[in-house]
Amino acid sequence: MNRYLIKIAFDGTSYHGFQVQPNGVTVQSTLMEALKKLTGENSTVTGCSRTDAGVHAREFYFHTDISLNLPQKAFIKGLNSLLPDDIKVLGAKKTENTFHARYNVSNKTYEYGFYLGKEDPFLHRYYLHLDKEPSVKLMNKFCKSIIGTHDFCGFSSAKRTVSSTVRTVYKCKTRIEDNKIIFSITADGFLYNMVRILAGTALAVGYGRLPIDTANKVFSTNDRSLGGDTLSPKGLFLTKVIYKK
Amino acid sequence: MNRYLIKIAFDGTSYHGFQVQPNGVTVQSTLMEALKKLTGENSTVTGCSRTDAGVHAREFYFHTDISLNLPQKAFIKGLNSLLPDDIKVLGAKKTENTFHARYNVSNKTYEYGFYLGKEDPFLHRYYLHLDKEPSVKLMNKFCKSIIGTHDFCGFSSAKRTVSSTVRTVYKCKTRIEDNKIIFSITADGFLYNMVRILAGTALAVGYGRLPIDTANKVFSTNDRSLGGDTLSPKGLFLTKVIYKK
Repeated sequence: MNRYLIKIAFDGTSYHGFQVQPNGVTVQSTLMEALKKLTGENSTVTGCSRTDAGVHAREFYFHTDISLNLPQKAFIKGLNSLLPDDIKVLGAKKTENTFHARYNVSNKTYEYGFYLGKEDPFLHRYYLHLDKEPSVKLMNKFCKSIIGTHDFCGFSSAKRTVSSTVRTVYKCKTRIEDNKIIFSITADGFLYNMVRILAGTALAVGYGRLPIDTANKVFSTNDRSLGGDTLSPKGLFLTKVIYKK
Repeated sequence: MNRYLIKIAFDGTSYHGFQVQPNGVTVQSTLMEALKKLTGENSTVTGCSRTDAGVHAREFYFHTDISLNLPQKAFIKGLNSLLPDDIKVLGAKKTENTFHARYNVSNKTYEYGFYLGKEDPFLHRYYLHLDKEPSVKLMNKFCKSIIGTHDFCGFSSAKRTVSSTVRTVYKCKTRIEDNKIIFSITADGFLYNMVRILAGTALAVGYGRLPIDTANKVFSTNDRSLGGDTLSPKGLFLTKVIYKK
Protein backbone atom coordinates (compact mmCIF):
# COMPACT_ATOMS: atom_id res chain seq x y z
CA MET A 1 0.00 0.00 0.00
CA ASN A 2 1.10 3.55 -0.75
CA ARG A 3 0.07 6.34 1.60
CA TYR A 4 -0.62 9.68 -0.03
CA LEU A 5 -1.02 13.07 1.63
CA ILE A 6 -3.39 15.15 -0.46
CA LYS A 7 -3.91 18.90 -0.21
CA ILE A 8 -7.34 20.22 -1.07
CA ALA A 9 -9.47 23.37 -0.73
CA PHE A 10 -13.24 23.40 -0.43
CA ASP A 11 -16.24 25.68 -0.25
CA GLY A 12 -18.19 24.06 2.59
CA THR A 13 -21.53 25.80 1.95
CA SER A 14 -23.24 22.71 0.53
CA TYR A 15 -21.69 20.11 2.85
CA HIS A 16 -22.63 18.67 6.23
CA GLY A 17 -19.05 19.18 7.37
CA PHE A 18 -15.98 17.14 6.56
CA GLN A 19 -16.63 13.91 8.44
CA VAL A 20 -19.01 11.24 7.06
CA GLN A 21 -22.51 11.59 8.55
CA PRO A 22 -25.45 9.19 8.49
CA ASN A 23 -27.54 11.85 6.71
CA GLY A 24 -26.28 14.38 4.24
CA VAL A 25 -23.35 14.71 1.86
CA THR A 26 -19.96 15.49 3.43
CA VAL A 27 -16.60 16.44 1.95
CA GLN A 28 -15.17 13.09 3.11
CA SER A 29 -17.90 11.00 1.43
CA THR A 30 -17.51 13.04 -1.77
CA LEU A 31 -13.73 12.46 -1.77
CA MET A 32 -14.18 8.72 -1.15
CA GLU A 33 -16.54 8.40 -4.10
CA ALA A 34 -14.17 10.28 -6.41
CA LEU A 35 -11.19 8.15 -5.26
CA LYS A 36 -13.20 4.98 -5.88
CA LYS A 37 -13.89 6.13 -9.43
CA LEU A 38 -10.22 7.07 -9.97
CA THR A 39 -8.60 3.89 -8.63
CA GLY A 40 -11.36 1.28 -8.42
CA GLU A 41 -10.35 0.72 -4.78
CA ASN A 42 -12.33 1.48 -1.62
CA SER A 43 -9.90 3.83 0.12
CA THR A 44 -10.50 5.47 3.47
CA VAL A 45 -10.00 9.22 3.75
CA THR A 46 -8.52 10.61 6.98
CA GLY A 47 -8.75 14.38 7.29
CA CYS A 48 -6.55 16.81 9.23
CA SER A 49 -9.60 18.29 10.96
CA ARG A 50 -13.32 17.73 11.48
CA THR A 51 -14.63 21.01 10.14
CA ASP A 52 -18.29 21.77 10.95
CA ALA A 53 -21.13 21.94 8.45
CA GLY A 54 -20.83 25.04 6.27
CA VAL A 55 -17.19 25.78 7.19
CA HIS A 56 -14.68 26.30 4.35
CA ALA A 57 -11.01 25.41 3.85
CA ARG A 58 -8.45 27.25 1.77
CA GLU A 59 -5.99 24.52 2.80
CA PHE A 60 -6.93 21.07 4.10
CA TYR A 61 -5.03 17.76 4.08
CA PHE A 62 -6.15 14.16 4.12
CA HIS A 63 -4.27 10.88 3.84
CA THR A 64 -5.41 7.79 1.96
CA ASP A 65 -3.92 4.36 1.18
CA ILE A 66 -3.95 3.13 -2.40
CA SER A 67 -2.25 0.05 -3.87
CA LEU A 68 -1.47 1.86 -7.12
CA ASN A 69 1.64 3.96 -7.60
CA LEU A 70 0.25 7.30 -8.78
CA PRO A 71 2.03 10.53 -9.75
CA GLN A 72 0.84 13.90 -8.36
CA LYS A 73 -0.71 14.70 -11.74
CA ALA A 74 -3.12 11.75 -11.47
CA PHE A 75 -4.58 13.26 -8.32
CA ILE A 76 -4.67 16.87 -9.52
CA LYS A 77 -5.99 16.20 -13.03
CA GLY A 78 -7.81 12.93 -12.38
CA LEU A 79 -9.48 13.65 -9.05
CA ASN A 80 -10.38 17.21 -10.02
CA SER A 81 -12.22 15.97 -13.10
CA LEU A 82 -14.27 13.67 -10.82
CA LEU A 83 -14.89 16.16 -7.99
CA PRO A 84 -17.58 18.85 -7.95
CA ASP A 85 -16.49 22.47 -8.47
CA ASP A 86 -16.56 23.24 -4.73
CA ILE A 87 -13.80 20.75 -3.81
CA LYS A 88 -10.46 20.94 -5.60
CA VAL A 89 -7.16 19.06 -5.20
CA LEU A 90 -4.18 21.44 -4.92
CA GLY A 91 -1.36 18.92 -4.45
CA ALA A 92 -0.47 15.33 -3.56
CA LYS A 93 2.63 13.45 -2.41
CA LYS A 94 3.60 10.00 -1.19
CA THR A 95 4.37 9.82 2.55
CA GLU A 96 5.59 7.29 5.15
CA ASN A 97 2.95 4.72 6.02
CA THR A 98 3.11 5.92 9.64
CA PHE A 99 2.21 9.50 8.72
CA HIS A 100 -1.24 10.56 9.96
CA ALA A 101 -3.03 13.60 8.52
CA ARG A 102 -4.57 14.50 11.91
CA TYR A 103 -2.19 13.23 14.60
CA ASN A 104 0.91 14.69 12.91
CA VAL A 105 -0.51 18.23 12.82
CA SER A 106 1.61 20.72 14.75
CA ASN A 107 -0.77 23.67 14.47
CA LYS A 108 -3.63 25.01 12.41
CA THR A 109 -4.87 28.50 11.59
CA TYR A 110 -8.52 29.46 11.23
CA GLU A 111 -9.85 32.81 10.09
CA TYR A 112 -13.28 34.29 10.65
CA GLY A 113 -14.34 37.09 8.29
CA PHE A 114 -16.72 40.02 8.75
CA TYR A 115 -17.57 42.78 6.28
CA LEU A 116 -18.86 46.33 6.65
CA GLY A 117 -20.80 48.64 4.37
CA LYS A 118 -23.67 47.76 2.07
CA GLU A 119 -24.82 44.15 2.02
CA ASP A 120 -23.10 42.37 -0.89
CA PRO A 121 -24.38 39.10 -2.41
CA PHE A 122 -20.82 38.11 -3.39
CA LEU A 123 -19.35 38.63 0.10
CA HIS A 124 -22.40 37.24 1.89
CA ARG A 125 -21.42 33.67 1.15
CA TYR A 126 -18.08 33.88 2.99
CA TYR A 127 -18.32 36.81 5.41
CA LEU A 128 -20.68 37.90 8.16
CA HIS A 129 -22.18 41.33 7.49
CA LEU A 130 -21.87 43.91 10.28
CA ASP A 131 -24.16 46.94 10.41
CA LYS A 132 -21.75 48.96 12.53
CA GLU A 133 -18.01 48.89 12.99
CA PRO A 134 -16.64 47.22 16.14
CA SER A 135 -13.45 48.46 17.81
CA VAL A 136 -10.67 46.35 16.32
CA LYS A 137 -8.42 47.66 19.11
CA LEU A 138 -10.72 46.10 21.74
CA MET A 139 -11.01 42.90 19.68
CA ASN A 140 -7.21 42.69 19.66
CA LYS A 141 -7.06 43.16 23.43
CA PHE A 142 -9.28 40.10 23.75
CA CYS A 143 -7.19 38.22 21.16
CA LYS A 144 -4.02 38.92 23.16
CA SER A 145 -5.68 37.71 26.38
CA ILE A 146 -6.36 34.22 25.00
CA ILE A 147 -2.84 33.53 23.69
CA GLY A 148 -1.22 30.75 25.73
CA THR A 149 -2.31 27.44 27.25
CA HIS A 150 -5.85 27.46 28.70
CA ASP A 151 -8.80 25.21 29.33
CA PHE A 152 -11.12 26.23 26.45
CA CYS A 153 -14.02 24.08 27.76
CA GLY A 154 -16.26 27.13 28.27
CA PHE A 155 -15.45 28.35 24.74
CA SER A 156 -16.73 25.15 23.13
CA SER A 157 -20.13 23.62 22.59
CA ALA A 158 -21.54 20.66 24.51
CA LYS A 159 -21.08 18.33 21.54
CA ARG A 160 -17.43 17.73 22.51
CA THR A 161 -16.05 14.21 22.16
CA VAL A 162 -12.50 14.80 23.38
CA SER A 163 -11.16 14.09 26.87
CA SER A 164 -8.88 17.08 27.38
CA THR A 165 -10.16 20.57 26.71
CA VAL A 166 -6.80 22.28 27.23
CA ARG A 167 -5.37 23.88 24.10
CA THR A 168 -2.46 26.19 23.33
CA VAL A 169 -3.12 29.29 21.25
CA TYR A 170 0.10 30.46 19.57
CA LYS A 171 -1.23 33.49 17.73
CA CYS A 172 -4.50 35.40 17.75
CA LYS A 173 -5.09 38.69 15.97
CA THR A 174 -7.78 40.76 14.29
CA ARG A 175 -6.84 42.71 11.18
CA ILE A 176 -8.57 45.10 8.77
CA GLU A 177 -8.51 44.41 5.01
CA ASP A 178 -10.37 47.03 2.96
CA ASN A 179 -13.98 46.82 4.20
CA LYS A 180 -13.35 43.48 5.93
CA ILE A 181 -12.36 42.52 9.46
CA ILE A 182 -10.54 39.20 9.85
CA PHE A 183 -10.19 37.38 13.19
CA SER A 184 -7.28 34.92 12.92
CA ILE A 185 -6.20 32.23 15.40
CA THR A 186 -3.39 29.65 15.38
CA ALA A 187 -3.43 26.81 17.92
CA ASP A 188 -2.31 23.21 18.44
CA GLY A 189 -5.93 22.13 18.30
CA PHE A 190 -9.51 23.35 18.46
CA LEU A 191 -12.62 22.15 20.31
CA TYR A 192 -16.07 21.87 18.75
CA ASN A 193 -17.30 25.36 17.70
CA MET A 194 -14.33 26.95 19.50
CA VAL A 195 -13.34 29.42 16.76
CA ARG A 196 -16.94 30.47 16.08
CA ILE A 197 -17.46 31.15 19.82
CA LEU A 198 -14.11 32.97 20.23
CA ALA A 199 -14.83 35.12 17.14
CA GLY A 200 -18.31 35.87 18.53
CA THR A 201 -16.77 36.79 21.88
CA ALA A 202 -14.16 39.03 20.20
CA LEU A 203 -17.00 40.77 18.33
CA ALA A 204 -19.05 41.32 21.53
CA VAL A 205 -15.91 42.77 23.16
CA GLY A 206 -15.33 44.95 20.08
CA TYR A 207 -18.85 46.35 20.34
CA GLY A 208 -18.28 47.15 24.03
CA ARG A 209 -21.14 44.81 24.98
CA LEU A 210 -18.83 42.43 26.86
CA PRO A 211 -15.94 43.53 29.13
CA ILE A 212 -12.70 41.58 28.51
CA ASP A 213 -12.57 40.64 32.22
CA THR A 214 -15.97 38.95 31.95
CA ALA A 215 -14.94 37.15 28.77
CA ASN A 216 -11.76 35.93 30.46
CA LYS A 217 -13.78 34.55 33.39
CA VAL A 218 -14.90 31.79 30.98
CA PHE A 219 -11.45 30.24 31.53
CA SER A 220 -11.81 30.01 35.33
CA THR A 221 -15.54 29.21 35.48
CA ASN A 222 -16.04 27.14 32.27
CA ASP A 223 -19.32 29.08 32.03
CA ARG A 224 -20.25 29.17 28.32
CA SER A 225 -22.94 31.82 28.97
CA LEU A 226 -20.30 34.45 29.82
CA GLY A 227 -18.88 34.36 26.26
CA GLY A 228 -20.24 35.73 22.98
CA ASP A 229 -22.52 34.13 20.39
CA THR A 230 -21.57 31.12 18.27
CA LEU A 231 -21.26 32.81 14.87
CA SER A 232 -22.57 31.39 11.58
CA PRO A 233 -20.21 28.80 10.01
CA LYS A 234 -20.21 30.61 6.66
CA GLY A 235 -17.54 33.11 7.79
CA LEU A 236 -15.09 30.45 8.98
CA PHE A 237 -12.10 29.22 6.95
CA LEU A 238 -9.35 26.77 7.79
CA THR A 239 -6.45 28.62 6.15
CA LYS A 240 -3.21 26.92 7.20
CA VAL A 241 -2.11 23.49 8.45
CA ILE A 242 1.46 22.97 9.70
CA TYR A 243 2.82 19.45 10.27
CA LYS A 244 5.42 18.38 12.83
CA LYS A 245 8.91 17.98 11.35
CA MET B 1 -48.61 55.74 -7.76
CA ASN B 2 -44.94 56.36 -7.00
CA ARG B 3 -42.30 54.96 -9.35
CA TYR B 4 -39.09 53.83 -7.71
CA LEU B 5 -35.77 52.96 -9.37
CA ILE B 6 -34.04 50.34 -7.29
CA LYS B 7 -30.40 49.32 -7.55
CA ILE B 8 -29.55 45.72 -6.70
CA ALA B 9 -26.73 43.18 -7.03
CA PHE B 10 -27.22 39.45 -7.34
CA ASP B 11 -25.36 36.16 -7.53
CA GLY B 12 -27.23 34.46 -10.38
CA THR B 13 -25.96 30.91 -9.74
CA SER B 14 -29.26 29.63 -8.34
CA TYR B 15 -31.62 31.54 -10.66
CA HIS B 16 -33.16 30.81 -14.04
CA GLY B 17 -32.17 34.28 -15.18
CA PHE B 18 -33.78 37.61 -14.35
CA GLN B 19 -37.06 37.41 -16.24
CA VAL B 20 -40.04 35.41 -14.87
CA GLN B 21 -40.16 31.90 -16.38
CA PRO B 22 -42.95 29.33 -16.35
CA ASN B 23 -40.58 26.90 -14.58
CA GLY B 24 -37.91 27.78 -12.07
CA VAL B 25 -37.20 30.62 -9.68
CA THR B 26 -35.97 33.87 -11.24
CA VAL B 27 -34.56 37.08 -9.76
CA GLN B 28 -37.69 38.95 -10.90
CA SER B 29 -40.11 36.53 -9.22
CA THR B 30 -38.04 36.63 -6.02
CA LEU B 31 -38.11 40.45 -6.02
CA MET B 32 -41.87 40.53 -6.65
CA GLU B 33 -42.52 38.22 -3.70
CA ALA B 34 -40.34 40.31 -1.38
CA LEU B 35 -42.04 43.56 -2.53
CA LYS B 36 -45.45 41.99 -1.92
CA LYS B 37 -44.40 41.16 1.64
CA LEU B 38 -42.98 44.64 2.18
CA THR B 39 -45.91 46.70 0.84
CA GLY B 40 -48.87 44.33 0.64
CA GLU B 41 -49.27 45.39 -3.00
CA ASN B 42 -48.80 43.32 -6.16
CA SER B 43 -46.14 45.42 -7.91
CA THR B 44 -44.60 44.61 -11.24
CA VAL B 45 -40.81 44.61 -11.51
CA THR B 46 -39.23 45.89 -14.75
CA GLY B 47 -35.53 45.14 -15.06
CA CYS B 48 -32.82 47.00 -16.99
CA SER B 49 -31.75 43.79 -18.72
CA ARG B 50 -32.82 40.17 -19.25
CA THR B 51 -29.74 38.42 -17.92
CA ASP B 52 -29.51 34.69 -18.75
CA ALA B 53 -29.71 31.84 -16.25
CA GLY B 54 -26.60 31.73 -14.06
CA VAL B 55 -25.38 35.23 -14.96
CA HIS B 56 -24.52 37.64 -12.12
CA ALA B 57 -24.91 41.39 -11.62
CA ARG B 58 -22.75 43.70 -9.52
CA GLU B 59 -25.13 46.49 -10.56
CA PHE B 60 -28.65 46.04 -11.86
CA TYR B 61 -31.67 48.36 -11.83
CA PHE B 62 -35.39 47.75 -11.87
CA HIS B 63 -38.39 50.06 -11.59
CA THR B 64 -41.59 49.36 -9.73
CA ASP B 65 -44.79 51.28 -8.94
CA ILE B 66 -46.02 51.43 -5.35
CA SER B 67 -48.84 53.53 -3.90
CA LEU B 68 -46.96 54.03 -0.64
CA ASN B 69 -44.48 56.83 -0.12
CA LEU B 70 -41.35 55.00 1.03
CA PRO B 71 -37.91 56.33 2.01
CA GLN B 72 -34.74 54.69 0.63
CA LYS B 73 -34.16 53.03 4.00
CA ALA B 74 -37.39 51.06 3.72
CA PHE B 75 -36.09 49.40 0.57
CA ILE B 76 -32.53 48.82 1.76
CA LYS B 77 -33.37 47.59 5.27
CA GLY B 78 -36.85 46.23 4.61
CA LEU B 79 -36.37 44.49 1.28
CA ASN B 80 -32.97 43.10 2.25
CA SER B 81 -34.45 41.46 5.32
CA LEU B 82 -37.01 39.73 3.04
CA LEU B 83 -34.62 38.79 0.21
CA PRO B 84 -32.32 35.76 0.16
CA ASP B 85 -28.58 36.32 0.69
CA ASP B 86 -27.82 36.17 -3.03
CA ILE B 87 -29.92 39.24 -3.96
CA LYS B 88 -29.28 42.55 -2.18
CA VAL B 89 -30.69 46.07 -2.55
CA LEU B 90 -27.93 48.70 -2.83
CA GLY B 91 -30.04 51.82 -3.29
CA ALA B 92 -33.48 53.20 -4.16
CA LYS B 93 -34.92 56.52 -5.32
CA LYS B 94 -38.20 57.94 -6.53
CA THR B 95 -38.28 58.76 -10.29
CA GLU B 96 -40.59 60.31 -12.87
CA ASN B 97 -43.52 58.04 -13.77
CA THR B 98 -42.29 58.03 -17.37
CA PHE B 99 -38.87 56.67 -16.45
CA HIS B 100 -38.30 53.12 -17.72
CA ALA B 101 -35.53 50.91 -16.27
CA ARG B 102 -34.84 49.29 -19.66
CA TYR B 103 -35.76 51.83 -22.34
CA ASN B 104 -33.90 54.68 -20.65
CA VAL B 105 -30.58 52.80 -20.57
CA SER B 106 -27.83 54.58 -22.50
CA ASN B 107 -25.22 51.81 -22.21
CA LYS B 108 -24.29 48.78 -20.16
CA THR B 109 -21.00 47.08 -19.34
CA TYR B 110 -20.55 43.33 -18.98
CA GLU B 111 -17.39 41.55 -17.82
CA TYR B 112 -16.39 37.95 -18.40
CA GLY B 113 -13.76 36.53 -16.04
CA PHE B 114 -11.19 33.76 -16.48
CA TYR B 115 -8.57 32.54 -14.02
CA LEU B 116 -5.24 30.79 -14.38
CA GLY B 117 -3.20 28.52 -12.12
CA LYS B 118 -4.49 25.80 -9.82
CA GLU B 119 -8.22 25.15 -9.78
CA ASP B 120 -9.75 27.07 -6.86
CA PRO B 121 -13.19 26.27 -5.37
CA PHE B 122 -13.67 29.91 -4.37
CA LEU B 123 -12.95 31.31 -7.85
CA HIS B 124 -14.74 28.49 -9.66
CA ARG B 125 -18.14 29.95 -8.92
CA TYR B 126 -17.47 33.23 -10.75
CA TYR B 127 -14.59 32.61 -13.16
CA LEU B 128 -13.84 30.12 -15.92
CA HIS B 129 -10.65 28.17 -15.24
CA LEU B 130 -8.04 28.14 -18.03
CA ASP B 131 -5.35 25.46 -18.15
CA LYS B 132 -3.02 27.58 -20.25
CA GLU B 133 -2.58 31.31 -20.72
CA PRO B 134 -4.03 32.89 -23.87
CA SER B 135 -2.37 35.89 -25.52
CA VAL B 136 -4.09 38.94 -24.02
CA LYS B 137 -2.48 40.99 -26.79
CA LEU B 138 -4.32 38.92 -29.45
CA MET B 139 -7.54 39.07 -27.40
CA ASN B 140 -7.24 42.87 -27.36
CA LYS B 141 -6.73 42.95 -31.13
CA PHE B 142 -10.07 41.18 -31.47
CA CYS B 143 -11.66 43.49 -28.88
CA LYS B 144 -10.53 46.54 -30.85
CA SER B 145 -11.95 45.07 -34.08
CA ILE B 146 -15.50 44.86 -32.72
CA ILE B 147 -15.71 48.44 -31.41
CA GLY B 148 -18.24 50.42 -33.46
CA THR B 149 -21.67 49.78 -34.98
CA HIS B 150 -22.12 46.28 -36.44
CA ASP B 151 -24.75 43.65 -37.09
CA PHE B 152 -24.06 41.21 -34.23
CA CYS B 153 -26.56 38.64 -35.52
CA GLY B 154 -23.85 36.01 -36.05
CA PHE B 155 -22.56 36.64 -32.53
CA SER B 156 -25.90 35.82 -30.91
CA SER B 157 -27.87 32.65 -30.39
CA ALA B 158 -30.99 31.65 -32.32
CA LYS B 159 -33.26 32.42 -29.34
CA ARG B 160 -33.36 36.12 -30.31
CA THR B 161 -36.66 37.96 -29.98
CA VAL B 162 -35.59 41.39 -31.19
CA SER B 163 -36.10 42.83 -34.66
CA SER B 164 -32.83 44.69 -35.15
CA THR B 165 -29.53 42.94 -34.47
CA VAL B 166 -27.39 46.03 -34.99
CA ARG B 167 -25.61 47.23 -31.84
CA THR B 168 -22.93 49.81 -31.07
CA VAL B 169 -19.96 48.73 -28.98
CA TYR B 170 -18.38 51.77 -27.28
CA LYS B 171 -15.56 50.02 -25.44
CA CYS B 172 -14.10 46.52 -25.47
CA LYS B 173 -10.93 45.50 -23.69
CA THR B 174 -9.24 42.54 -22.00
CA ARG B 175 -7.18 43.19 -18.87
CA ILE B 176 -5.05 41.15 -16.47
CA GLU B 177 -5.76 41.30 -12.71
CA ASP B 178 -3.41 39.09 -10.66
CA ASN B 179 -4.10 35.55 -11.92
CA LYS B 180 -7.31 36.63 -13.65
CA ILE B 181 -8.12 37.76 -17.17
CA ILE B 182 -11.17 40.00 -17.58
CA PHE B 183 -12.92 40.60 -20.91
CA SER B 184 -14.95 43.81 -20.65
CA ILE B 185 -17.48 45.26 -23.12
CA THR B 186 -19.65 48.39 -23.11
CA ALA B 187 -22.47 48.74 -25.66
CA ASP B 188 -25.87 50.35 -26.20
CA GLY B 189 -27.44 46.89 -26.05
CA PHE B 190 -26.72 43.18 -26.23
CA LEU B 191 -28.32 40.28 -28.09
CA TYR B 192 -29.07 36.89 -26.54
CA ASN B 193 -25.78 35.18 -25.49
CA MET B 194 -23.80 37.93 -27.28
CA VAL B 195 -21.22 38.56 -24.53
CA ARG B 196 -20.67 34.86 -23.85
CA ILE B 197 -20.06 34.26 -27.58
CA LEU B 198 -17.81 37.33 -27.98
CA ALA B 199 -15.76 36.32 -24.89
CA GLY B 200 -15.48 32.79 -26.29
CA THR B 201 -14.37 34.20 -29.63
CA ALA B 202 -11.80 36.47 -27.95
CA LEU B 203 -10.47 33.41 -26.08
CA ALA B 204 -10.18 31.31 -29.27
CA VAL B 205 -8.32 34.23 -30.89
CA GLY B 206 -6.09 34.51 -27.78
CA TYR B 207 -5.18 30.83 -28.08
CA GLY B 208 -4.31 31.30 -31.75
CA ARG B 209 -7.00 28.79 -32.73
CA LEU B 210 -9.04 31.39 -34.59
CA PRO B 211 -7.57 34.11 -36.86
CA ILE B 212 -9.06 37.58 -36.24
CA ASP B 213 -9.96 37.85 -39.94
CA THR B 214 -12.08 34.71 -39.70
CA ALA B 215 -13.76 35.96 -36.53
CA ASN B 216 -14.52 39.29 -38.20
CA LYS B 217 -16.15 37.47 -41.13
CA VAL B 218 -19.05 36.75 -38.74
CA PHE B 219 -20.12 40.37 -39.29
CA SER B 220 -20.39 40.06 -43.09
CA THR B 221 -21.66 36.45 -43.25
CA ASN B 222 -23.80 36.24 -40.06
CA ASP B 223 -22.34 32.72 -39.80
CA ARG B 224 -22.37 31.77 -36.10
CA SER B 225 -20.12 28.76 -36.75
CA LEU B 226 -17.15 31.03 -37.59
CA GLY B 227 -17.05 32.44 -34.03
CA GLY B 228 -15.88 30.89 -30.76
CA ASP B 229 -17.77 28.86 -28.17
CA THR B 230 -20.64 30.19 -26.06
CA LEU B 231 -18.92 30.25 -22.65
CA SER B 232 -20.53 29.15 -19.37
CA PRO B 233 -22.79 31.82 -17.79
CA LYS B 234 -20.99 31.58 -14.43
CA GLY B 235 -18.14 33.89 -15.54
CA LEU B 236 -20.46 36.69 -16.74
CA PHE B 237 -21.28 39.81 -14.70
CA LEU B 238 -23.33 42.86 -15.55
CA THR B 239 -21.11 45.48 -13.90
CA LYS B 240 -22.36 48.93 -14.95
CA VAL B 241 -25.61 50.49 -16.20
CA ILE B 242 -25.63 54.09 -17.44
CA TYR B 243 -28.92 55.92 -18.00
CA LYS B 244 -29.62 58.66 -20.54
CA LYS B 245 -29.54 62.16 -19.08
